[in-house]
Amino acid sequence: MGSLGKPVRVLLVGSGGIGTMVAYALETGGQAEVTAVLRSNYDAVQENYFHIYSVDHGEVAHWYPTKVLNSIPSVDKDSPGAHYDYVIVTTKNFPGIQEPSLPELIAPAVTPGYTAIVLIQNGINIERPFFAKFPTNPILSGITFMGAAETSPGIINHYNHDRTFIGVFPSPSASKYQESLAIAAARCLVDAYSACGSQVDCTYDPDVPYSRWRKLLYNASYNGVAAILGMDTSRMRFAEHIIDGLIRPLMQEIRATAKAAANVDLKEELIETMITADNYDKFFKPSMLQDAEKGRFLEFENLVGEPLREAGMAKVETPTLKFVYSLLKGLQFKAMEKHGHVVVPKTGEGLKYGGC
Amino acid sequence: MGSLGKPVRVLLVGSGGIGTMVAYALETGGQAEVTAVLRSNYDAVQENYFHIYSVDHGEVAHWYPTKVLNSIPSVDKDSPGAHYDYVIVTTKNFPGIQEPSLPELIAPAVTPGYTAIVLIQNGINIERPFFAKFPTNPILSGITFMGAAETSPGIINHYNHDRTFIGVFPSPSASKYQESLAIAAARCLVDAYSACGSQVDCTYDPDVPYSRWRKLLYNASYNGVAAILGMDTSRMRFAEHIIDGLIRPLMQEIRATAKAAANVDLKEELIETMITADNYDKFFKPSMLQDAEKGRFLEFENLVGEPLREAGMAKVETPTLKFVYSLLKGLQFKAMEKHGHVVVPKTGEGLKYGGC
Repeated sequence: MGSLGKPVRVLLVGSGGIGTMVAYALETGGQAEVTAVLRSNYDAVQENYFHIYSVDHGEVAHWYPTKVLNSIPSVDKDSPGAHYDYVIVTTKNFPGIQEPSLPELIAPAVTPGYTAIVLIQNGINIERPFFAKFPTNPILSGITFMGAAETSPGIINHYNHDRTFIGVFPSPSASKYQESLAIAAARCLVDAYSACGSQVDCTYDPDVPYSRWRKLLYNASYNGVAAILGMDTSRMRFAEHIIDGLIRPLMQEIRATAKAAANVDLKEELIETMITADNYDKFFKPSMLQDAEKGRFLEFENLVGEPLREAGMAKVETPTLKFVYSLLKGLQFKAMEKHGHVVVPKTGEGLKYGGC
Repeated sequence: MGSLGKPVRVLLVGSGGIGTMVAYALETGGQAEVTAVLRSNYDAVQENYFHIYSVDHGEVAHWYPTKVLNSIPSVDKDSPGAHYDYVIVTTKNFPGIQEPSLPELIAPAVTPGYTAIVLIQNGINIERPFFAKFPTNPILSGITFMGAAETSPGIINHYNHDRTFIGVFPSPSASKYQESLAIAAARCLVDAYSACGSQVDCTYDPDVPYSRWRKLLYNASYNGVAAILGMDTSRMRFAEHIIDGLIRPLMQEIRATAKAAANVDLKEELIETMITADNYDKFFKPSMLQDAEKGRFLEFENLVGEPLREAGMAKVETPTLKFVYSLLKGLQFKAMEKHGHVVVPKTGEGLKYGGC
């Protein structure tokens, strides 16, 4: 179907490891034209293009999407040909730190009631501010299990097979009609993505809440604890007490919260599966650990904070999650100080706990 | 009294920051002769002596105790003049890692039924293996609030006033007679220490369990969390959520455990006092953080592990303490790997959580 019409017009926001590989798959399939918005790597890519080392596509030198910009374009709402069909967001999520917020940032490029917004990001409740800002647009979920990182500006190391799921975030207020359109938008993107060929696995996701809570089993446990301990997941598994004392209790708390807060059934057996999900031999460092090692902000509010708040409202006891959240907030404080978002006073005068 | 007799003979085990300042105070008072057992700094001290920068004593160049050894001496039990009156241990405590254990290590220098063993170390239940090994010897507690570190071999930076408390560990089996002797041994050491003059505050501690649980309020909270977060105590206080979410709950759990497990009453108000105990302006890094930064072993078993086990036996709920313990065990695992105490296998074959 999609292959008969004109290519879909995609604006990609966040062209690091994951974003660039999404753009590459879409462009390679021939059913999409991608305009990528770059920030830190704009100059490098303008000069040398992207250089990709991919587990799926091999080495790709001098690759460039259809178009590259260094800021979000403002779409002329009156010119039909200018509309973006999709705005795909692959940046990390730092609610409360990002200014402007992501919905505000992309708004100039979004045609109300038309453009589908695709969030290829981790965590739960990430769609809420987009539903609030764009109540008549399809808001789509992208969950990817690929591993990819930008090792230096424009240099992409794609080290884990691209397995990506695209579906529809259930809307609190959508009509049956809106829902049908959103599903069609999701399926059309899956088609354009899959046109790349058998190197990638892109699948329609019929149950986004389930998929997101399922992935949260890993992201609310291994990802956060890895950042706190500075430890890859294989070492955690070898040091069994970290699994028994922290990882499994966290997964159990997420499972209980998924059921109570979202009526999502995560089977008990899934926990043991998730504990050994990573290939032991790879000594994998989850994303938050990679960010912590680089002194970057930690993407923990939608991975740990939101499930904790959901648990609170659903009256589920999640002591381990609460504890991990407190520590991640402490690590985030350090990153915020490093980036000048907070200034620690030299004396304790007037502070709540300043007195000596 | 003490000043009329011959100087007491002291063997000091562990002559880093704290140990060297204890030796200096004792020797300066003229009522003690200190033989110090050195390990990593032996060569440096043999060559250049100690060089001390002290908040209490000023700069002291080329200082040397009465005698320096590089291993624990074996005392000739038949020669009365050879006995040590005191063996003072100021090393850190790493039960399960140290080989041989501290009691085994010092045994050759201890005259059974005679030598008083003084543990200037943090935590609770540290006396147990000494009572087991030396059932007829006085086992004394030293709690110091001085701050001192060896910045390089033989160079001592003594940055916080020497305030030290010496008392008797209650023995599970001592007779009234043994108790009286132990108290006399403690008071005699306080006298010898105090002979140094008003630069130091050395006091007899009439209630060791109270003093140790009181200090644990700080050591089981700030000390462990500082190591986990890599953060000084002033930053934790400025980032109020770390106090509210972690430090105060930990102190409350220690307070409840002290009461239930040891019948020690720590007043509620003490918690707020302890929260602001450090001078904010100093941005103090507790000892475990200093050790973590240097990749050293963490002294957490007697500071966090033992209160946790006491809480378990007394059926006190200590969820925060339990999580802190799990994480510290994870950090210790990293230190053990670094020092070659564990080898992480390259593949997960045969491991409990190895399968992929």
